[in-house]
Amino acid sequence: MMPATTMVSRKACVARDAADPLQGLRDRFVIPDGLIYLDGNSLGPMPRAAAAVLSRTIEREWGEALIGSWNSAGWFDMPVRLGDRVGALIGASAGQTLVCDTTSINLYKAIHAAIGLKPDRGVIIAEDESFPTDLYIIEGAMKSAGRPMRRRLIGADGRSIESLLDREVAVAVLSHVNYRTGALLDIATITRQLHDAGALVIWDLCHSIGVVEIGFDLHEVDFAVGCTYKYLNGGPGAPAFIAVAKAHQAAAQQPLSGWWGHAAPFAFDRDFRPDQGIKRFLCGTQPIISLRGVDVALDVMDGVDVAALRQKSLALTELFMARVAALLPGLEIVTPAQSSLRGSQVAIEFDRGYPVVQAMIERGVIGDFRAPDIMRFGFAPLYVRFQDVWDAADILAACIRDEVWREPRFNRVLGVT
Amino acid sequence: MMPATTMVSRKACVARDAADPLQGLRDRFVIPDGLIYLDGNSLGPMPRAAAAVLSRTIEREWGEALIGSWNSAGWFDMPVRLGDRVGALIGASAGQTLVCDTTSINLYKAIHAAIGLKPDRGVIIAEDESFPTDLYIIEGAMKSAGRPMRRRLIGADGRSIESLLDREVAVAVLSHVNYRTGALLDIATITRQLHDAGALVIWDLCHSIGVVEIGFDLHEVDFAVGCTYKYLNGGPGAPAFIAVAKAHQAAAQQPLSGWWGHAAPFAFDRDFRPDQGIKRFLCGTQPIISLRGVDVALDVMDGVDVAALRQKSLALTELFMARVAALLPGLEIVTPAQSSLRGSQVAIEFDRGYPVVQAMIERGVIGDFRAPDIMRFGFAPLYVRFQDVWDAADILAACIRDEVWREPRFNRVLGVT
Repeated sequence: MMPATTMVSRKACVARDAADPLQGLRDRFVIPDGLIYLDGNSLGPMPRAAAAVLSRTIEREWGEALIGSWNSAGWFDMPVRLGDRVGALIGASAGQTLVCDTTSINLYKAIHAAIGLKPDRGVIIAEDESFPTDLYIIEGAMKSAGRPMRRRLIGADGRSIESLLDREVAVAVLSHVNYRTGALLDIATITRQLHDAGALVIWDLCHSIGVVEIGFDLHEVDFAVGCTYKYLNGGPGAPAFIAVAKAHQAAAQQPLSGWWGHAAPFAFDRDFRPDQGIKRFLCGTQPIISLRGVDVALDVMDGVDVAALRQKSLALTELFMARVAALLPGLEIVTPAQSSLRGSQVAIEFDRGYPVVQAMIERGVIGDFRAPDIMRFGFAPLYVRFQDVWDAADILAACIRDEVWREPRFNRVLGVT
Repeated sequence: MMPATTMVSRKACVARDAADPLQGLRDRFVIPDGLIYLDGNSLGPMPRAAAAVLSRTIEREWGEALIGSWNSAGWFDMPVRLGDRVGALIGASAGQTLVCDTTSINLYKAIHAAIGLKPDRGVIIAEDESFPTDLYIIEGAMKSAGRPMRRRLIGADGRSIESLLDREVAVAVLSHVNYRTGALLDIATITRQLHDAGALVIWDLCHSIGVVEIGFDLHEVDFAVGCTYKYLNGGPGAPAFIAVAKAHQAAAQQPLSGWWGHAAPFAFDRDFRPDQGIKRFLCGTQPIISLRGVDVALDVMDGVDVAALRQKSLALTELFMARVAALLPGLEIVTPAQSSLRGSQVAIEFDRGYPVVQAMIERGVIGDFRAPDIMRFGFAPLYVRFQDVWDAADILAACIRDEVWREPRFNRVLGVT
């Protein structure tokens, strides 16, 4: 593959796109004309097939076949069937993954299960720079743990994970890729460190599934959670996933013990008896139409090699960082330059980041901003082209050269992005 | 209104339908030709507007406007906005109801909040004949309560709620309408009894919302949960609702403390600080496309008076019970004859119920079966006609007269219905 450093002109980028073995995948998505979409790390675009497939689910399965679709259209089995498909993308063999509920709720289940497996340990490790909801859910899980639990934070007072590991640690909740900086952790090494210390690990894969190889089985990961609406393109707020290693399933318990997690949900027993396998991590009835969006998104990934996606993703982010460094030498890129430490996004620290991101949107480049001062640009290898990267860097440079923050309209806070 | 007992012929039923002030509502739904759909108590049919509205959400909001739709299409506010619309149907003033997650998960939140408000009481009352997931979730909530909790069951050993009330009772979890028998409880009286005993109440409204007047504010209900895919017609597995009385909100805590429940979700604070109002009962990102199905379903209910729906519902079930009693005098109807004790379904106990329901489906009447021996028929006043009731009773009688259980094909177990 042509290294990103050889792409020294827009023409070279166009040539690189033409030679890209993944080039055809872009046509599987609806990308509005003229738009450079660098926000797939927040919400992936719509697969072209989604309109027809979802319409069939709505009009045929719901509208015509009605209640019968729970069987005939396979609605009831979707969390398990889609779970296995997501499992394939994270290197988890069948029977270990479900698509259901939200990432936060699945994390709550996983934390309860993990601390239940380590009844004599009272510490949960997390990251000071974690996506906040993971920290909030840890708070909630600790309060409902039924025994005193404490949290230790990696990064607080500069502490490393090694310095926090001892015989009190039950589990660590870690983001594979940091949502702000795009920094990537080493699953293999850290999982081994935790296991050596007698602890378990829960990996939050929200920002790595679909763009980074994960090796759930290979690295003997205990639990993983993540969402399906970023690089998986499952649709806004589509149900999340949870993976639980086979070895833990029989002993793992979680308190959201709804009927879909029962060993015989339609026996209508009075007492809860969990399914023997992964289904004990289900709870209630799932939102079928949104689930079907995940189904379509996984169709798009059929036959696509995650290793090839990773290779292209690294080339895209490398090119962007090189162009930004060339055009805007004073700007601080906080995403690691070393590819083994980088996910699929580039984060730039800039105190005028908010108006710059708004101005870039007006000029056709969608990125996003995370307070207080981070501009985030996600590079999804399924549909972002090298020419898009080139153009986006130019537009970023132009916005800064034009001092767009002087325009009042770019400083209006729009709320959620 | 013409009493059901005066409808002594199919012709009288057709006349009654023609005079029905709610008649026009049926056209708002897609009901397949020739089908009598008596399973709206399990999955409501598709509103006619759903295809276009959902298609707009999928193709325009997701496909074209992408991430911007979190603001421009109001995605982020949907749980609160739809919550207020659901609130209107249960008699809860604004700011007390959310549409989010599943009934099971919302029940878990409500139980935690309730027992947190009664820290010196250790008993949860439930019903022996409850829909099982409510019992399973109570089990899970008790295990994660952080203090010893016990469950007492109404109906076990014939015990009444009065006999179970004492100063140890923190909360009762009760189904407004029983999912099997269709029996309706008296919210006003029971809520008062519980309050008089110093306890709180959580009403499960799954089988009453949309067909029975509820009076959340009027009866000073503490908490309510329920689903949106039965008589509300929100689509398969559409997100559920939770209502929390204003008076409890500031003190009520629940452990599924995800970022959508934070006072400032986009401040990305490290520590959880709950929203001051109902939003503290949110957790994570919601499935927008399925949520939009609820939005459409609530449009259908706009301007429809729940009292009028209730009146028609009672006339429909009364007619069905009268016809069944006339045609099949030996059959045991377990649903209460007294209208004040009846929801919107009729349940018939019959040991050959399973093959009978299958045969009725083949003959165009969709009901369902609940093990071991209950045939359930739901009468949704939005789209079920009196002539449908007449015909359904005839077809039920014909299936029994034909001894359809002798046909092997009707005895094949199809799984979920």
